[in-house]
Parts: sequence; structure tokens; C-alpha cells
Amino acid sequence: MPEPLSNEQAITRSPAQEATALDVARRLTGIAASPGLGIGPAFVLRPPDLTFEAQTAGADAAEQSQRFADALAKSRAELGDLRGRTAQKLGEEHAEIFDAHLLMLDDPELLEQVEAGLQQGQSAETALSQVSDTFIAVFETMEDEYMRERAADLRDVRNRVLAHLLGRPLTSLGDLREPAVLVAHDLTPSDTAALDRSLVRGIVTAVGGRTSHSAIMARGLGLPAVVGAGEAALTLASGTPLIVDGELGRVLVEPGESALAEAQTRAQVYAERRERLLALVGTEGRTRDGERIELAANIGSPGDLPIALEYGAEGVGLYRTEFLYMAQDRLPTEEEQFAAYRQVLEGMAGKPVIIRTLDIGGDKAAPYLNLPEEENPFMGFRAIRLCLARPDIFRVQLRALLRASVYGNLKIMFPMVATMEEFREARSLLEEERARLQTEGVAVAEHIPLGMMIEVPAAAVLAETFAQEAEFFSVGSNDLIGYAMAADRMNEQVSGLYQPLNPSVLKMIALTCEGARKHGRWVGVCGEMAGDRLAMPLLVGMGVTELSMSAPALLSRREQLLNLDLGQAREVAAQALTLGTAAEVEALVHQAYGEAVAAPATARE
Amino acid sequence: MPEPLSNEQAITRSPAQEATALDVARRLTGIAASPGLGIGPAFVLRPPDLTFEAQTAGADAAEQSQRFADALAKSRAELGDLRGRTAQKLGEEHAEIFDAHLLMLDDPELLEQVEAGLQQGQSAETALSQVSDTFIAVFETMEDEYMRERAADLRDVRNRVLAHLLGRPLTSLGDLREPAVLVAHDLTPSDTAALDRSLVRGIVTAVGGRTSHSAIMARGLGLPAVVGAGEAALTLASGTPLIVDGELGRVLVEPGESALAEAQTRAQVYAERRERLLALVGTEGRTRDGERIELAANIGSPGDLPIALEYGAEGVGLYRTEFLYMAQDRLPTEEEQFAAYRQVLEGMAGKPVIIRTLDIGGDKAAPYLNLPEEENPFMGFRAIRLCLARPDIFRVQLRALLRASVYGNLKIMFPMVATMEEFREARSLLEEERARLQTEGVAVAEHIPLGMMIEVPAAAVLAETFAQEAEFFSVGSNDLIGYAMAADRMNEQVSGLYQPLNPSVLKMIALTCEGARKHGRWVGVCGEMAGDRLAMPLLVGMGVTELSMSAPALLSRREQLLNLDLGQAREVAAQALTLGTAAEVEALVHQAYGEAVAAPATARE
Repeated sequence: MPEPLSNEQAITRSPAQEATALDVARRLTGIAASPGLGIGPAFVLRPPDLTFEAQTAGADAAEQSQRFADALAKSRAELGDLRGRTAQKLGEEHAEIFDAHLLMLDDPELLEQVEAGLQQGQSAETALSQVSDTFIAVFETMEDEYMRERAADLRDVRNRVLAHLLGRPLTSLGDLREPAVLVAHDLTPSDTAALDRSLVRGIVTAVGGRTSHSAIMARGLGLPAVVGAGEAALTLASGTPLIVDGELGRVLVEPGESALAEAQTRAQVYAERRERLLALVGTEGRTRDGERIELAANIGSPGDLPIALEYGAEGVGLYRTEFLYMAQDRLPTEEEQFAAYRQVLEGMAGKPVIIRTLDIGGDKAAPYLNLPEEENPFMGFRAIRLCLARPDIFRVQLRALLRASVYGNLKIMFPMVATMEEFREARSLLEEERARLQTEGVAVAEHIPLGMMIEVPAAAVLAETFAQEAEFFSVGSNDLIGYAMAADRMNEQVSGLYQPLNPSVLKMIALTCEGARKHGRWVGVCGEMAGDRLAMPLLVGMGVTELSMSAPALLSRREQLLNLDLGQAREVAAQALTLGTAAEVEALVHQAYGEAVAAPATARE
Repeated sequence: MPEPLSNEQAITRSPAQEATALDVARRLTGIAASPGLGIGPAFVLRPPDLTFEAQTAGADAAEQSQRFADALAKSRAELGDLRGRTAQKLGEEHAEIFDAHLLMLDDPELLEQVEAGLQQGQSAETALSQVSDTFIAVFETMEDEYMRERAADLRDVRNRVLAHLLGRPLTSLGDLREPAVLVAHDLTPSDTAALDRSLVRGIVTAVGGRTSHSAIMARGLGLPAVVGAGEAALTLASGTPLIVDGELGRVLVEPGESALAEAQTRAQVYAERRERLLALVGTEGRTRDGERIELAANIGSPGDLPIALEYGAEGVGLYRTEFLYMAQDRLPTEEEQFAAYRQVLEGMAGKPVIIRTLDIGGDKAAPYLNLPEEENPFMGFRAIRLCLARPDIFRVQLRALLRASVYGNLKIMFPMVATMEEFREARSLLEEERARLQTEGVAVAEHIPLGMMIEVPAAAVLAETFAQEAEFFSVGSNDLIGYAMAADRMNEQVSGLYQPLNPSVLKMIALTCEGARKHGRWVGVCGEMAGDRLAMPLLVGMGVTELSMSAPALLSRREQLLNLDLGQAREVAAQALTLGTAAEVEALVHQAYGEAVAAPATARE
């Protein structure tokens, strides 16, 4: 078999060379971003050629004006359509980006200046380009990060109108009519909005890593994906038969008969497993010996609810409210928040919904807050720290939560709590807002359980103390591991130290469980460990009784749980805590559970 | 009493206004950087006026050439003198900066171009300025950070020669002949080299914070200091009577009789206390009931040894070798390292010396290593992580350490260990180098105890496992607290979460001590907690048996220890571990120990 084409080679080759290389290599290698096997013809999202001959004089102004008006009208309709789909699929807050685009189409200053150009005899393309390029240049030089981001929006809008003027419509995912493997430079949230999940068999992108938007989205939708496959991917012709292997991180191009047969067999195994797993929807998470373990979903917006329910989520273990704050260029209002929280609570119809208060700062930025640059943002001004320093912002969220509490089974959780004082202060603010609402005659649920994330090592080792006041814990394993190992997992040079199975990490979780037990509290896990096949038996063995994960992993874990004996899990976990290295723990888990935790060659999770 | 002059006011005032403001305010307010009370006349280090009338033609070339040669000769002698003093006081590696300056004076290209200018009739001042400014400009545009730093060196050299040409010699600390309070914009390492400690009563700088070089140096020398007092400080005339209060962070200008009397009384109390403490030099650290607690010093170079010994250090608990790597613009050679380690081992004459292997990266940069920029350097590629990835660098240090081991009582300690694999890998490299040296016939001590820092939370909670292989632990409390609380203490917005007395931090140290005890290992502390009057009884109570701190704190801690009952300390520590907040722990310590831990209004430590 020929050597795989590495990305480095692909990037340094010209398109023509790449095409040749592809013919020889017949495969692309990238990063395994979402497991599964996708078979189908390529549907290549290629940016259209928007070049044109500039015409600065002599054009018929009336004719150009009409052409421009037509292109604007088409663009408006298109944006309206995208807006609607997005609102439907992902919720109103994701749809607002298109409102911004629509506003730009109607910007009086921009329209006037284009019209002035047309009156001077410019073609519509020329006038539009010149005017919008000037605006873009101005936006780009602005200090304000918002305004700089507006430049990107205006570029999108200009391209959309230009495409209509030139009659070269933007290839859109909306044009997908047959099952296909989607091939793109990268996928944006707008692409996601237009994507018809029932037709997409797999995703291949030229750029990106395991945590890029495309990768996260693919996992969220349960679609096999290979990202970072190199620009060579874009040289494929639409229609080229592909096999996307989201576990090995490779794409077979025009696979031969035997490769296709093998892939079909594997895809069949996937499909059967998927069916078997889907049969578990509606059942409760329980170990073989009947111990109840709640399997909940992590969501980022009300739009994630349908998938969560489809995979049988028994609750929402983590609703990350920060997306409400990041999707727009201003703070969300109390009404907007209330609407989103209520939608989720009602959507879960009485099942528990844990809403985490704002966890912004660090790697999650909201430019309009004008937070200072930090040397070490992970160890900086974020989450509850920011909320306590900005009660004006925090109180709005707390009021929205309190008002929504009567629409379902709400629990509230504070992120990044490191000291008792922080927990108490946050609770006081909540109680103040509750009292205020009650004075105003607004209905609030009588008791809203109040918990906290365990992600700061200090909180883990002091869990017994925190458990006196916090009614539940949810271990944010991603950050906890980072702080415990003093390793930023986004930093390639130390990401090897990000070890979920390191005995020290398990010890911190064990301390959390012990502390909680002494005060009759329960412990959940809402980081990536919760959905990990190797970590799950250890978590359950240590006493975790709720696991919240991305929806597609729910059914695999439910199946795994059905085969798990709690007594054995406790023994294995106790033994793991005596070991010295993550490698030893991994070996122990494999030895104890064998196939049940083997790499899921046939799992789609 | 009139309102103190705030720094902000001082900075926005003109020098004349400042002088007036001073007359009225009679005090400067700054940051308390090093405790103690200093009384004496100001000695103001003010940059000289090096302006001159440019002369580009008509000067006598022979005469100017002679003037230039004379100025060079004087500069050479001065630099040689500074070099010698620095080598004597701070060690060879600190003196090398002056070698670089001397080389610049002899740079053939620079000398030739100056000579060419003189032949065209330029004055020596003009020729020197024009040529060196061209070189400086070139250096400054270079990509390489080194070369850019060379620009600053050349500027120093140019000023020195210019000062001699103009007959306006640089005010130098070497000119200090009478006891005085030193007033400067800021102090550089070169200033430190020239400083006669027996004459300096206190230090006042216009800029800087608690961790600036000036502040660290002042604490190291045990001199009262106020830093960041504003530029107004430089408007003082030399000879102005001052009282520097290094505890309240203020400087009284021309104090009245009553203020002077009060200060003299307080200074007297200091002096008496100092004498009482100095009587403890030569005794061993012991609790009242005879438990041996080793009181050791933290050092950064062999030059720190005299002060450590003067304050009765029973050993070196932490030799930070990174300064060897940061003082120059290249890696230190094996010979250079060997010489430094040997000097420290011999200087301590058989007392234990713990040398920590290279802890570079993060906030400590060595530009020549070209380390990548990191989002979160504290959680990044540093210390043992870097050393294991760069065995070529690490092995040189290990060889130097092994060779030096026969000259004293050496223990080696690895920094930032997070996993057992790291410790084992580092130990293997050491053993490989030991075997290699032995094959080469080089003498190496038979057993060199091998320990590790406890600063990553993972290592603290897993101490029992690490204690199976590491022969001792030293708690690096500064970093441990930072990671435990997920708070960068250099970040003002979260520095309040940097809580040494937080029960979670104590719990991690307690876990470290328990783990060590099970395998018969000992635990030291070498972070700032070791020298802290409130933390010390808790550390001893938890089982810490070695405290390593900056030398000036040693005697106060030894005295405090003599009044400490181990049994009570254990009870208090056990109780502290049940508390919920740092404030509660602090209250407990105050209640248990009363005056012994009261803020040292009369302490110089």
C-alpha cells in the first residue's frame, strides 16, 4: 500500500501536484476528530471565484442600480432563511448573527455611498467592493475587538451580495440533496446551521484540531469526522467516492472494491451497535446490580436539547450558560436568559437540569467586557471570580434563573469555587435576588439545590468542608486535571501531562466523594472523564452517582454500566488509588474489565 | 499632619512643583519592600547631564584622539574595578556582564569608525555619540532578543565614556563614604555590586514593586526599603535627612525632632532585637521541647553565602541554579556550573546543600533557548519538563553536580515533578552520567540523596507514592498555593486567592508529610511560607522538619521556634485542618500563639 500523504507534504504542494499526489496515495491523513465510518460521494464546499473586471466609469447607472437591488433582495432572503433554520436548530441566540448581517445590508451610509458610485458610472460590483472595502479597512484598524470582528461580518455580507451580482452563488450546504461526505476548508457555525444531518455521512476538513468547532460539532451530531486533512482535500472533485474513518483519522479516496467491502462491513457493525444502543433510550442508568447512576447530557444552548433527548439523557448535568454571553456583542438581557433557561427546563419536562452560572474569562472571551490581558488566564479572573467582582452582571443571571425555576427541576451550580467565602458570597447574592423577586410578587421555586463545580484542587481536597454548605458537587475534570497536573492541555509541549487516569487525579475525586458522603451529598462528573469508557468504572467505583457528557456518548456508557458490578468497581477503584502512574491505572482497568473497555473499534460515541 | 503625597500626584507634577509639594508634605509614600527603620542623610543617585554641543568639523584630530584614548582608559579601569568587586561579592557569573562591556570598549569596528570621525574634524563626544548611536539603532531593530539587549549594554558603555570626556563622572555607589539612605530611580545589579552594605541605612526607589530587583536585594541584605515612592524622590537633595520606614512604606523627609526621636527609639528596639537575634547564630533550630528543626537558607548564587552564614543558616535548603542560566546570554558550561556548585558546597563546609536542578521557563526566561510563547506559562513547558525534553542541556548540569558532590554534603532536588515517570526519568539520566563519570575515573560521592519539590498539587496528594522513591520532599509553597487555588499571584485581580493559610493548602502539605512519614522520608518547605511567622508553627505541627528561607528571616524563626511546644503545635495544626477558611486559620494561630506571631512591629526579618 502506498505511503499516506502527510499534511506537511500536502501543504507545500501546488494544487496540481496535490492532485497527482492524491491519485497515487489514494488517501488523506488527518486527525481523528469524531469516531465512526462514513461512506459516500464528496460534497466539496469550495469558496466561489468572486473576481471581476473593475469598471469605474461608463456603466448605466439605472441598470446597475437595479442589478444591485436584485442582489440585495436575494441576499436578504437567503439570510432570512439561514436565520430561521439556525433559530430552529440551535436557538435564537445563535441566530442573531444573521440579524447583524441583515442590518448591514440595510446600512444607509453603505447604500448611499454605493449609489454615489453607481451615479459616477461604476459597475455594481465595483461600487460595492470599493465601498465595503473602505468600511472593512476602517473596522480593522479599530482598537475595539468588536468592531474588528464586524470587519469579518461585513466581508461575509459583501461576498454574499457579490456572488449574486456575478451569478456565482456561494456553494451552500443547503444545496446538499443527496447523502454525501462533506469536504470543506473548515466549518463555521453558519455552515452548521445549514447542514442537513440526515444527508451528511461524514465530515472532512482541511484545517483544525480535535477541539476546533468542526470537531466539536461533528461529535455533537454523532458524525464521523477527520479534521486537519490538509488543503489537498479541497482539490477533490465533488462526487468522488470517499470513506471517512473517524477513528484512524484517514480518508480513503476512490476506494477499491475490497476497501469498500471492508468499510461497508464495519459500517454495518456500527449500524447494528447503534441500533442496539438506541434500544436503551428510555431506560434508566443502572449498574448490573441495580445501583442507580444518572446519565445526563452537557448542553450549551436550548438547541442541544433534541440531541440530548434523542440519546436518552436523564437530565441536563451541565448547561454552560456562557454561550449566551459569547454569541452576541453585548450582555444578554434578563429576559433573554429567562427565555433560554425556561426553554431548557420545560424541554426536560421535570427531569433535573443543572445550570452553571457564567463561566467566562480565561480561554472563553467576551470582548465587550474589556477584560484585561492576563499572563496566565487559566489561573486568572474568570467564572465566579468575575461574577463576584461584577455583581451587576451576576445578579441579572441569578434573577433569570430564579424566575425560570418554577418551570422545571432546576439546580444551580457555581463554577471555579476555590474558597468557602466565594460560595457563601454567591449564595448570598442569590438569596438577595430571591427576596427581591418575592417582594415583587414573582414566583420562585421553594427550594433550588445549590451546588458547585469541583475543578480547583483546593476545593477537591477541602470537599468535606464545602459539603457542609454545597448541596451537590460536579467534578469539572478538564480543569481539575489541568490544575492538578499544572499542565495546560492546549499547550502541545505539556499536553502529555494531562492524564485523567493519573492516580493523583483519582485521589482528588475520591476525596471529593468522601467529603460529600459525610454530609449526605451526591457527586457528579461533567468533564470529559464522565463519558470516557476507561474512567467511568473508576468514577462509579469511587462513589460518583451522576455522569454528564456529550449526548452521543450516553448510550455506550449506559450499556457499559449495565455490565458493571458495583462491588467490583469499588474494589478496582480502591486498587487504582494505590497505584503510582496513569499507565498502571490504565492497565488495571483493562485487566479488570477486558473487552468492556477495549477501544471501541465498532463504537460510535 | 498633612496628607501624604501620593505617587500619582508626584508623577504628574513638574520637578519644581514636586519640590514644593515635598516641602509641604514632608513625606513620600511608596511600597513597603523590606522591613526595618533607616535613619540618615539622602545619597541621591541621579543620572548625570551628558548633553554637549555637537562639533562636526574643525576639531584638532590629534587632540581629540588623545582625549578619546584617555576616556577609554579611565572607563576600562572603572569597569575592571566594578568587575572585581562584583566577582567578589556575587560570584564570577554576575561579573561577566562587565566583560561584555570591556569587549565593547575594544571593538575594532567601533574604534575605527570613531577615529574616522575624528579625522573629519569631529569632536570626540560627537564622533563617539554618532557611531555608537548607529550601532545601538542596528542592535535595536534585530529580531534576536540578545542583540536587542546588547543595545542597552552599549548605551551604558557610551554613557560611561561620554561622562569621562565631559568630566561629569557618573554618580556611583562607590562614592558613598558616609552612612546614608540610598535614593535612586531603581537599582540595577551593577549598583548592587558597588554598594557598601555597612554604609547603607536604607533604600528608597522611585519605581518598582515588592518583587522588583531592588526590593529582593534589600530584603536579601536586610536593609529597610521603600520602593515605588515616585519620581519626586529624585528631587531630594543629597544630604537631606530621611527616615525610611520599611514597614509602613513611607519616607519622612527632614523629620522634626519628635519624629526623629520616635524613630530613633524604634530603631533602637530594632537594634536590640537584632543583637538578641544575632546571639542565636551558631545555635541549632530546636523547639522548646527539643525537636530538631533545620533552619536553612535559600540562595541564588555563591555570592549569597556570606549573608546566609552571617544569619546562622544550618544549610542551604534551596540553591536556585536558574540564575546561572539567566545571567548570561548562553548556556553555562559544565566547568562554570561545577565551579559554582563546588564553591557553595565548600562554603557550607559539610552542612547540607540542596541544589535544585534547572527551573527555567514559565516566568523565568532565558531568551537564548528560544522557548515558544505560551498562553499559560505557569502551566507550561518549564523546569523538569524542559530538562527531560532537552537532555543535552540537563546532562551538563547533572555532570557538574556529580563532580561537585565530593566537595561537601550535596543533595539534589528536581523541580515541578508531577508524575512518577518524570522522577524516574530524571533519576535515570543522573545515574547514566554517574556511570559515565566513574568510567572516566572522575570521583563522585557514593550516595547523593535525591529529592523533589512538592509544588504540583498532583505530587502533594500522591506523596505517599512518590516517597517510595524520592528520598526527601521540599514544599515549594509559592507555586503549590498558586496551582492549588488556580490563582496566579502576579495577577492583581486574583491575588487575594493566593492564601498560604487556606486549609486546602495546609491539607496538601499535611498529605505530603503523612506520605513521607510512611516511608521514613523528611519534608522541608522552601517557599515563602517557611519564613512566615504565622505559617511556621503550623508547618512544624504537621511534621515539616526543615525550613528554608531568605537569610534575614532565619533568626526570627529560630527565636520563635525556641518558644514553640511541639505537642501544642501538633494540636493547633490538626485543628487548623478542620477549619473552612484562611481567615479562621489565621484567627486560630493568633489565639494559640498570641504575641509570638503578632505582626513584628520591631522585627527586622
